[in-house]
Amino acid sequence: MSLITPIAPLAGGYFSGKTLVQLAEALRSRRVSALELTERALADIAIANPLLNAFTYVAVKQARHSAVEADRLLAEGNDLGILHGIPIGIKDNIMTAGMPTTMGSAHFRDWIPERDASCVAALKRAGGVIIAKTTTHEFAYGPTGDCSLQGATHNPWDRSKMTGGSSCGSAAAVAAGILPVALGTDTGGSVRIPAALTGVVGFKPSYGDLSTEGVFPLSRSLDHVGIITGNPADAAAVYAVLVPVAERQCRVDLAGLNLRWVPPESFGSQDPQIVAAVKTWLHMACGRELPAAEEVAGWSTEVHQILGQIQKSEAYEIHAERVASHPELFQPEVLQRLRASREVRGWEYVRALERREMLSRRLVQVFETCDLLLMPTVAIRTPNLYDRTFYLDGQACEVRDTLLSLTSIWNLLGLPAVSIPCGLLEGLPLGCQLIAARGQDRMLMEAAQQLLAAGG
Amino acid sequence: MSLITPIAPLAGGYFSGKTLVQLAEALRSRRVSALELTERALADIAIANPLLNAFTYVAVKQARHSAVEADRLLAEGNDLGILHGIPIGIKDNIMTAGMPTTMGSAHFRDWIPERDASCVAALKRAGGVIIAKTTTHEFAYGPTGDCSLQGATHNPWDRSKMTGGSSCGSAAAVAAGILPVALGTDTGGSVRIPAALTGVVGFKPSYGDLSTEGVFPLSRSLDHVGIITGNPADAAAVYAVLVPVAERQCRVDLAGLNLRWVPPESFGSQDPQIVAAVKTWLHMACGRELPAAEEVAGWSTEVHQILGQIQKSEAYEIHAERVASHPELFQPEVLQRLRASREVRGWEYVRALERREMLSRRLVQVFETCDLLLMPTVAIRTPNLYDRTFYLDGQACEVRDTLLSLTSIWNLLGLPAVSIPCGLLEGLPLGCQLIAARGQDRMLMEAAQQLLAAGG
Repeated sequence: MSLITPIAPLAGGYFSGKTLVQLAEALRSRRVSALELTERALADIAIANPLLNAFTYVAVKQARHSAVEADRLLAEGNDLGILHGIPIGIKDNIMTAGMPTTMGSAHFRDWIPERDASCVAALKRAGGVIIAKTTTHEFAYGPTGDCSLQGATHNPWDRSKMTGGSSCGSAAAVAAGILPVALGTDTGGSVRIPAALTGVVGFKPSYGDLSTEGVFPLSRSLDHVGIITGNPADAAAVYAVLVPVAERQCRVDLAGLNLRWVPPESFGSQDPQIVAAVKTWLHMACGRELPAAEEVAGWSTEVHQILGQIQKSEAYEIHAERVASHPELFQPEVLQRLRASREVRGWEYVRALERREMLSRRLVQVFETCDLLLMPTVAIRTPNLYDRTFYLDGQACEVRDTLLSLTSIWNLLGLPAVSIPCGLLEGLPLGCQLIAARGQDRMLMEAAQQLLAAGG
Repeated sequence: MSLITPIAPLAGGYFSGKTLVQLAEALRSRRVSALELTERALADIAIANPLLNAFTYVAVKQARHSAVEADRLLAEGNDLGILHGIPIGIKDNIMTAGMPTTMGSAHFRDWIPERDASCVAALKRAGGVIIAKTTTHEFAYGPTGDCSLQGATHNPWDRSKMTGGSSCGSAAAVAAGILPVALGTDTGGSVRIPAALTGVVGFKPSYGDLSTEGVFPLSRSLDHVGIITGNPADAAAVYAVLVPVAERQCRVDLAGLNLRWVPPESFGSQDPQIVAAVKTWLHMACGRELPAAEEVAGWSTEVHQILGQIQKSEAYEIHAERVASHPELFQPEVLQRLRASREVRGWEYVRALERREMLSRRLVQVFETCDLLLMPTVAIRTPNLYDRTFYLDGQACEVRDTLLSLTSIWNLLGLPAVSIPCGLLEGLPLGCQLIAARGQDRMLMEAAQQLLAAGG
């Protein structure tokens, strides 16, 4: 297998299997124009969106205008870099000037921001063509991707299955080959979970690396902007555009890295077949068995309690007035979740922040003796759309909690984490999650490329 | 009048009216020894404490030992600076190795810490002689200074009156001339309020300037260590010992500073006679009427709501387990206050933190056009011990809220603030509060000295 994602049944899009480097080369050798790329994407959206519901708004005019401008600049020799002329999708909770931004909610049904979010402005400055808004779980408050003003997004691998969320549209758009790049947001796994369930790459950089200015908040101390692409090199390239530093290269040799496996069973019920499949893939890719990071394994209960208290307090603060004045405009499930969020006490939030600090200090110690942690991104079979319960060994488990169980800890602790595709089980993609110490984003993404190249 | 505090009826202590510079000079010219200073203080404690209840523990042995050591060092030519050989009192919620530290609570009736708080260790390194622990309102959770395991501290000006709190013992000890210096803590005014009501200087530096490591927390984001002395030069000198920087001198000319009056009436019910007395004193001292800082005046309601939510959440977090397991060990009033503190919601705390940030940004703007804000420290008549209600124009007012109403805002915003004595009304001291922008501590203390010299 190649670096390129396995092809989903609904992945007939133009960009399927194409890398940014290939596209950049084609643009510069005039084999294709930015306008053609945009027209391809627009055509694919028209065909696929009725099946996927991945887009909430298609910016036909603006995108064509930007593409023409990109072509003009390139013709003049003004080369803005790897994203120059590339069509990009933006999750519908990230502000885009002049394009409707609904947060997936009737509360913002008709809202059109006047300004771009920082990350969108940065993509535009780099020549990116903002072509569409992608579906989000309402207010990004849910990992299932099937609950919003615009309805559920369908998984390109099987339309009856969840994409996962909340960045459901961005993941489906990239998985279907409709777009090469899309931005998402990730507060508990909202970029990595749909990336895993649709077989693409979802990268959540270190907390604070990508500005959340102009992103509708869910839980401020957990919110991250994330990048969804078809392969890790593309995600690393977009990251380098958004977080430019003097030294972009990072020399990493996977064989020399100290890798540790985080046993996912300790984070709640997981499907043993999926855990085994990811472990086997990793074993093959690394050419060795990985020692377990036992110290992290014991953190589950504490992590999920702390995380719940922080997320609930911060999320309710954002929505308090809306819950009071117009509860009927929320999706019922999101409203119910918000109302429960109101009950956390101030002192519990304070305590949770302190315990988070303690965990962060312990984590620094873990990374003193290892370079990367590895685990599945999601370790249950992809649920059917709208399912809220699934059965494991005859025991009922909650879909939401289980989807989030392996990802949210890295939001709590602000670490960079990426989900890469690691094969299929019964025709549906699996995701392997790599986690690095804070600030080690470039090393993480270089390792992800090597791991995928080796594991294929 | 001189720089020196007016003398309280119970201010017969040896240190009454003596400055640190005078004491340092006397020590170095061998007119007095450190041991003699300690013996003077011990003798005064023995006489006055039955009347004042300002001390919870007297460290006779340790203090004599330290004083002898200080004399030995000085004789050898090892001069540790202005605090060398000076007896110092430490509030009973600040850890002192080998000395009981009760927090004024039965919960810690028999507790003896093994280590010194950072600030105590720093005083010791500077040659200070830790001589006694001073009474605190239980867990520093109250501004009246009359509710603790050890009972109420009495005001040296009138034993039937409150000293104010929570650093009641430190203020009474300095006001009575028993000690030249005492440390307190200030979370809502706990250094400045008792300083004002006992006619001494209470200085709360910028948030974070003095480490709270080893100080029993009340509300972490509001807690400050503070300094109580007889005059502002001494407080500035102690501050310089605790926060040494290359440039200790700060050239300030009071006449050239832009001073603004904060109308205290906008912060709730105040006694107009006291407001007028402080204003008149300031007018005289400055030689001019001060323009009002109207923008700050409007903040009262918001400030006190934010402050309440932050303090309650943080305070309950500290005490949650004690309230659950041993409620009977609290003073009933403190227990009641803690139980009410439990009710704040997580989202309200989060909102309060954000509103605090907004206020802080607005305050930066206020200080762009002014150097110092001035207002009374406390603008009601000193309440009788144990009173919880007083009457103003026939209207019942809460003692606690009113005592805190002019000071707590500067904890919320982390600004340096100092209370200096500004005369008497009906035989009881009044306090004038000076507030500067964050980090302007040295300018503030220099201005305080000049103002007191001018106002007398």
